[in-house]
Amino acid sequence: MIGETQTRMATEAAEAPDRIALQAASLAEPLADLAAKWSASPPRAIVTCARGSSDHAALYGKYALEIATGLPVASLGPSVVSVHETPLRLDGMLYITVSQSGQSPDLLRCAEAARAGGALVVAIVNDSASPLAGAADIVLDMQAGPEHAVAATKSFLCTLTTIARLIAAITDSPATDAAVDRLPEQLRSGSKDPWPSEILDRYVDAGRAFVIGRGPGLGVAAELALKAKEVAGLHAEAFSAAEVQHGPKAAIGPDSPVILLGTEDAAKASVEEAARTVGALGAPTFGSLVAVPGIVDLPTVRTGHPLTQPIVQAGAFYGFIEKLSRRRGLDPDNPPSLRKVTKTL
Amino acid sequence: MIGETQTRMATEAAEAPDRIALQAASLAEPLADLAAKWSASPPRAIVTCARGSSDHAALYGKYALEIATGLPVASLGPSVVSVHETPLRLDGMLYITVSQSGQSPDLLRCAEAARAGGALVVAIVNDSASPLAGAADIVLDMQAGPEHAVAATKSFLCTLTTIARLIAAITDSPATDAAVDRLPEQLRSGSKDPWPSEILDRYVDAGRAFVIGRGPGLGVAAELALKAKEVAGLHAEAFSAAEVQHGPKAAIGPDSPVILLGTEDAAKASVEEAARTVGALGAPTFGSLVAVPGIVDLPTVRTGHPLTQPIVQAGAFYGFIEKLSRRRGLDPDNPPSLRKVTKTL
Repeated sequence: MIGETQTRMATEAAEAPDRIALQAASLAEPLADLAAKWSASPPRAIVTCARGSSDHAALYGKYALEIATGLPVASLGPSVVSVHETPLRLDGMLYITVSQSGQSPDLLRCAEAARAGGALVVAIVNDSASPLAGAADIVLDMQAGPEHAVAATKSFLCTLTTIARLIAAITDSPATDAAVDRLPEQLRSGSKDPWPSEILDRYVDAGRAFVIGRGPGLGVAAELALKAKEVAGLHAEAFSAAEVQHGPKAAIGPDSPVILLGTEDAAKASVEEAARTVGALGAPTFGSLVAVPGIVDLPTVRTGHPLTQPIVQAGAFYGFIEKLSRRRGLDPDNPPSLRKVTKTL
Repeated sequence: MIGETQTRMATEAAEAPDRIALQAASLAEPLADLAAKWSASPPRAIVTCARGSSDHAALYGKYALEIATGLPVASLGPSVVSVHETPLRLDGMLYITVSQSGQSPDLLRCAEAARAGGALVVAIVNDSASPLAGAADIVLDMQAGPEHAVAATKSFLCTLTTIARLIAAITDSPATDAAVDRLPEQLRSGSKDPWPSEILDRYVDAGRAFVIGRGPGLGVAAELALKAKEVAGLHAEAFSAAEVQHGPKAAIGPDSPVILLGTEDAAKASVEEAARTVGALGAPTFGSLVAVPGIVDLPTVRTGHPLTQPIVQAGAFYGFIEKLSRRRGLDPDNPPSLRKVTKTL
């Protein structure tokens, strides 16, 4: 980036491809362990437990796991244990907890309660020496390396690929593993063809916005909306393409730009229908893999797999939102409210 | 309402207490049936499936059921069946589908897939002759009566009380049944002491806003945020009090008023902590059951039970948002975007 100091956020986001490439070797053994346990005693249901960005990764995993296995995936409310102290009854279930730091006391208590309640506990962490890892039966180290920016980027992408590899392991899907193996190069390729400057122009003064996805992409949309809040101070909200018709559209208009994360799978038509709805409301509308007239196209590398496609979309969004933050006069590495409040508490 | 024609929305919201009172008798038999089946063969997990407002009611139920039973409650993504055609594996699970009309084809397909997958299917509907009711093992008719306003009000409250009675039945809790029996009078009492006009003044020109809840109240907060969009064209977003610290606060400021739904249970302190965070960011802050200096108090009838408290808060909010819609020059019965788009599709 000529004439500018690269932000920590941009630097760390750019590290994601190398970090993802490290996972194939390091996750092989714990995932083989998980696959063996899964086969020997197939779970009755799956439970996830996480907070913030990690919970958005878990939402991606929820759709992906339900589609891949037909088992229901429950996102346990941590307060059920941490506030209400309810003993959990998770006999014969797979429990997946996700935390970059592995330090959160409420997630630790939940994992202990899950294990006491009969679940097989898997921890996806970025620190295999963390307390949460210590409470797990199987530890999946996401290998993101140290992350210093306030806004998580590479750790989010590494969490998604860890989940994709977990699904490859339990469903014995070499195609899914191969898709994750292709991803680092696809992410690098995507970063060479950033989103058009027109989108920056339309977002620079926006007060509110929407991000729309569906299926696994909904979890990514939720995370990107949070990122817009964190680094650009922009009130962006995520919705499922299926829910746009159920009321949210009443708040969509010319002052609320919309980004749609299209898919290349069976959900493609529903995202494109949502794009037409949004466009008809007069919202500036931008679409990745959304072939609808009048929608501004966001260049997107096609990955050839529904579990890696949203990851490439997230990577491209990071490039956009980091630039938008600076265009809005902010510092992506120092989200003002987040810092200020931390000091006042 | 002197000098004004009462809107359909206001009329229907005011019918909720009488409708809720009807449920005790009509739900007794199907709930006894459910309780007997629950005892004879305790479910391994619980799955919900719904869309829009009904899905927000299911979110209320998710927290309430997890706290009451210790079982995980999964919100099945309807697209898993309707788009991806995945066979469900729900052997020994309780499946609760919620739909006022009972007409949605995707929910019907999901219920059929759930039954084929081994679940006991309960349908909470407002029309016991609907296709969704026909696909269920047990039908819980919410008794809301005909609802004509675009914005659901009484049907949402009747869904919540049906869920509360379901929980009373499966946990054999006369205290919960008694709490629902007290609710109609508490709702009527609450409508006589509306929220202060100050809140209308602060919201009349707002472009965006937040509603914060926790536990069962988070499902209600999500619904109230949707109602703000639908009838007042206000981009309101819901958050868990626990998530405010995880990034959303970066988008909270003087231009984004916040309503917090406090509780009288173990979560009370966490909502009050969120109120202090939000207030320190300069947001106009309004709290129901939130005893924090500097927060504008929203008069709230104390119901004496954590499952009915959010229902009284929702009832009070309906009175507020209906007035706000008119103050913003809109017609609560004719949300402009919702109508317009329906015509253009």
